[in-house]
Amino acid sequence: MSDRLIYLPLGGAGEIGMNAYVYGYGAPGAERLIVVDLGVTFPDMDGSPGVDLILPDIAWLEERKAQIEGIFITHAHEDHVGAVGHCWERLGAPVYARPFTANIARRKLGEHGHPEGVVQVVDTYPHQIDCGPFKVSYLPISHSIPESAGLVIDSPDGRVLHSGDFKIDETPVVGDPWDEALWTEVSKDGVKALICDSTNVFTQAPGRSETTIAEPITALMGEAKGMVVATTFASNIARLKTLALAAQAAGRSVCLLGRAMRRMVEAATQEGILDGFPATVSPEDAQNIPRENLMLLVTGSQGERRAASAQLAQGSYLGLKLKEGDTFLFSSKTIPGNERGVIRIMNQLSEMGVDVVDDAGGKYHVSGHANRPDLQRMHQIVKPQILVPMHGEHRHLREHVKLGNAGGLTGIVAVNGMMIDLSGNQPTVAEYIETGRTYLDGSVQIGALDGIVRNRIRMALNGHMIVTLIIDEDGDPLGEPWVEINGLPEVGSSNTPLAEVIEEDLSQFLGRADDKTLIDDDKLEKELRSIARRSAQGEIGKKPEVTVIVSRLG
Amino acid sequence: MSDRLIYLPLGGAGEIGMNAYVYGYGAPGAERLIVVDLGVTFPDMDGSPGVDLILPDIAWLEERKAQIEGIFITHAHEDHVGAVGHCWERLGAPVYARPFTANIARRKLGEHGHPEGVVQVVDTYPHQIDCGPFKVSYLPISHSIPESAGLVIDSPDGRVLHSGDFKIDETPVVGDPWDEALWTEVSKDGVKALICDSTNVFTQAPGRSETTIAEPITALMGEAKGMVVATTFASNIARLKTLALAAQAAGRSVCLLGRAMRRMVEAATQEGILDGFPATVSPEDAQNIPRENLMLLVTGSQGERRAASAQLAQGSYLGLKLKEGDTFLFSSKTIPGNERGVIRIMNQLSEMGVDVVDDAGGKYHVSGHANRPDLQRMHQIVKPQILVPMHGEHRHLREHVKLGNAGGLTGIVAVNGMMIDLSGNQPTVAEYIETGRTYLDGSVQIGALDGIVRNRIRMALNGHMIVTLIIDEDGDPLGEPWVEINGLPEVGSSNTPLAEVIEEDLSQFLGRADDKTLIDDDKLEKELRSIARRSAQGEIGKKPEVTVIVSRLG
Repeated sequence: MSDRLIYLPLGGAGEIGMNAYVYGYGAPGAERLIVVDLGVTFPDMDGSPGVDLILPDIAWLEERKAQIEGIFITHAHEDHVGAVGHCWERLGAPVYARPFTANIARRKLGEHGHPEGVVQVVDTYPHQIDCGPFKVSYLPISHSIPESAGLVIDSPDGRVLHSGDFKIDETPVVGDPWDEALWTEVSKDGVKALICDSTNVFTQAPGRSETTIAEPITALMGEAKGMVVATTFASNIARLKTLALAAQAAGRSVCLLGRAMRRMVEAATQEGILDGFPATVSPEDAQNIPRENLMLLVTGSQGERRAASAQLAQGSYLGLKLKEGDTFLFSSKTIPGNERGVIRIMNQLSEMGVDVVDDAGGKYHVSGHANRPDLQRMHQIVKPQILVPMHGEHRHLREHVKLGNAGGLTGIVAVNGMMIDLSGNQPTVAEYIETGRTYLDGSVQIGALDGIVRNRIRMALNGHMIVTLIIDEDGDPLGEPWVEINGLPEVGSSNTPLAEVIEEDLSQFLGRADDKTLIDDDKLEKELRSIARRSAQGEIGKKPEVTVIVSRLG
Repeated sequence: MSDRLIYLPLGGAGEIGMNAYVYGYGAPGAERLIVVDLGVTFPDMDGSPGVDLILPDIAWLEERKAQIEGIFITHAHEDHVGAVGHCWERLGAPVYARPFTANIARRKLGEHGHPEGVVQVVDTYPHQIDCGPFKVSYLPISHSIPESAGLVIDSPDGRVLHSGDFKIDETPVVGDPWDEALWTEVSKDGVKALICDSTNVFTQAPGRSETTIAEPITALMGEAKGMVVATTFASNIARLKTLALAAQAAGRSVCLLGRAMRRMVEAATQEGILDGFPATVSPEDAQNIPRENLMLLVTGSQGERRAASAQLAQGSYLGLKLKEGDTFLFSSKTIPGNERGVIRIMNQLSEMGVDVVDDAGGKYHVSGHANRPDLQRMHQIVKPQILVPMHGEHRHLREHVKLGNAGGLTGIVAVNGMMIDLSGNQPTVAEYIETGRTYLDGSVQIGALDGIVRNRIRMALNGHMIVTLIIDEDGDPLGEPWVEINGLPEVGSSNTPLAEVIEEDLSQFLGRADDKTLIDDDKLEKELRSIARRSAQGEIGKKPEVTVIVSRLG
């Protein structure tokens, strides 16, 4: 069979988060591979209670470890770089990134004991990295974190442009401005495929520049009477600068709160991309500054329970306390699913008499992603033979293909696990790969479908009951069965303790049970479980999860 | 002490949902009481996994059962009437409601075996219900369900207006139009206090009428090529009519799907408030109608897992299936916290090739609550001596007081459990009452703070481990301790089954344990639990919930 050029999303296509894309070139099954981004997504109580982080399932890649030429990180957002530390050992290939991203990636690898040298800092276009059949070049692009990049991926079957996350912002405050000439240049000889960010395809208005919010934020800081607290994503260095300069203009000292906030400012400063940022004060010193001369820049814009914003809302953080007349600015948008946490904080602040200001429909926040008209502009510049939307839920990918079609492009909806053959004039699905999610649970990586978390969810929904029974040397029950409940009402409809009612029902069954049942652990357990569940249903109207433990003496 | 007029929210103030308000008049501690609304709120996985419904804690009222003169239901939304069936027996007083609301309340009471006669159908203003020291009159008001009402509550200390949920809509399609003259009339002799809906206090634009969406919806139905599915709250009878008439105009038959949808249309028809609704077809007949001539009107606008919309999104419902080219309209707004469920359905529909249309910024949906300018209008009409915001989270109540203050009114933020004395010229806090939430869990009512649900959440977050140990007649361990795990990884860092590692650590401890420990159940359990948790932390990086069961023979 002849060589082919393939694209395979393992994460990020059919969801927003956990980005992990694979490109390959070579004979089918023996392609040389490159990986673009290794990100995480965040767990929630609904589907992944107790889980610490969600990683892409890289089993397919791990099986092909010897075929991997390199791992290319487009930018330092957690959903693009967050899994590097957890996954690198299983893939082993060199990691490429621009300096700021490399700084963050190295910290993550370092936490797992991997050496600094794993990460290679790259120059941008026209510099190329040779990677087996590929030549890869980093193309600066504006986004909500510094040094974001798209990738120019040249293969024997043609050029692929991987947009990375991007927006069209010619004045991004920090980081690379949108450079239309550059994208025009790399597209001029024809582009095989554009793999393109889809996040904001439903947003009709053209995107707005980071600079547009400086004035309203400065006005807000100036007018506020008490202390001002502002929260945004710590990685949005441009926003931190906008907020800090506004504070400075209003005669306010800036104090950074939250580990991520300090780490990001440190990394940006180390890499020399954050100039003109005002000197900050420590939380200790901040306590001695008059409220009207202080701004706290804090983590927790998404209502995260342990972040600085949540702790301030609950009372105090590092000795700093909010009070009546203070102002709290969410210079951020709430990601769908995080509303409850954010609203909880807003109400706690309200109880303290703090005035909460949110993005106010864009006055104090702009998105980092290209809106619908900006995507059309990108399509028109690149004019790809094939459009493959990425970085979106299914509805975003589908809408993005429709948008491309309307502009005369051929597009395909490719979700996680769909291997697309880009060699021909039309994209085709070459194969379906089993993909999924890996949960980091404490210190262990488990499969999302292993049943472990499903069992936890079941206990949360149904409560849990333990039935223990001792069988003596003669094969007869020794004493009565014992029932313990966890997460269930103590008393149900008969006004007798639930455990007692169930013990009584189980005892009656055991009194009638024949030797054949008593000797058979599986059968005995099944019967005891079934009686316990039925009995609970009658008493409390729900069937708990039941664990039966039969101990046999002798 | 002299008689006083009190207001006490037990639910609905400091939250949106679970409305339950109390008014009282008389000597302190011996007031005669009326209850306004008895609603529910809905559980979620974050805070109340496995719970079926959340009811207000009515312990305070139950202790004063003999003082209760009546229960007044303002309208038939679940957050106002949903707890009537579950709570009525503990309160015992007559329930008053307008005919449509009474129809719904009777169904709920009937499910609990209570007689129809409990509910008394009331006439509207100027008709008055004598209730001890109070005279209560139902004042029709527009909202997103028919026959909503505010209450005129006359007491010896003056007139209180309880707005109920409302919007200012002079053309509400179904139900009472906003009647400014009526509200002006009841206010003309002075109003002691206005207890007022706060839901939309942050929405700056004036509210829009239900009629404004008929035209865009009709256009959408006409232009759609395949089948159209529309979802909205089943209780929004006006919306059902708007949607059904639009379908009819587009040559589409209407089929109702979902129990709540059929029940609401039935109740509205029984009470004669739904005229001109097109004849509907059964799901069986709908299967034989060409797709372009069909509209399904379905439950599940909030992404509820078992509703018709979720089932259609998963494949089929009662033989009806969606496919490429069909259109699904959310004629609704997603309530904060429900985003994940709604987005899940949208993506499932996208996978089927169904075009999803949402409220599109108000084109296909209008709110049922008064916006900020409408609240100001209400303030100006009523000119109350005291403004007490209700039906809102803390941030809404606080903002509503600020809005009142800006218009020259005296206002007070009163949250659940704050008993307000309205007798004087200024509102004062008379007392703080212990309030909370009651969970309906299966068939049992449990307190939210009883620890039962907290234990379920802990099992979901941390997993669960059972340690069993048998102690023989001599007080020595019989055999080894036994460990079972649930919701935990099978294997941790040492690559040995987790249960075995912990059993080994427990055995070592038991080998060293002295008789004093072995004889003391509490001490033994505490030690075993602590070792199991520490051992798990080392193996899997998390500390599970541990249940220890020690069985003593003889």
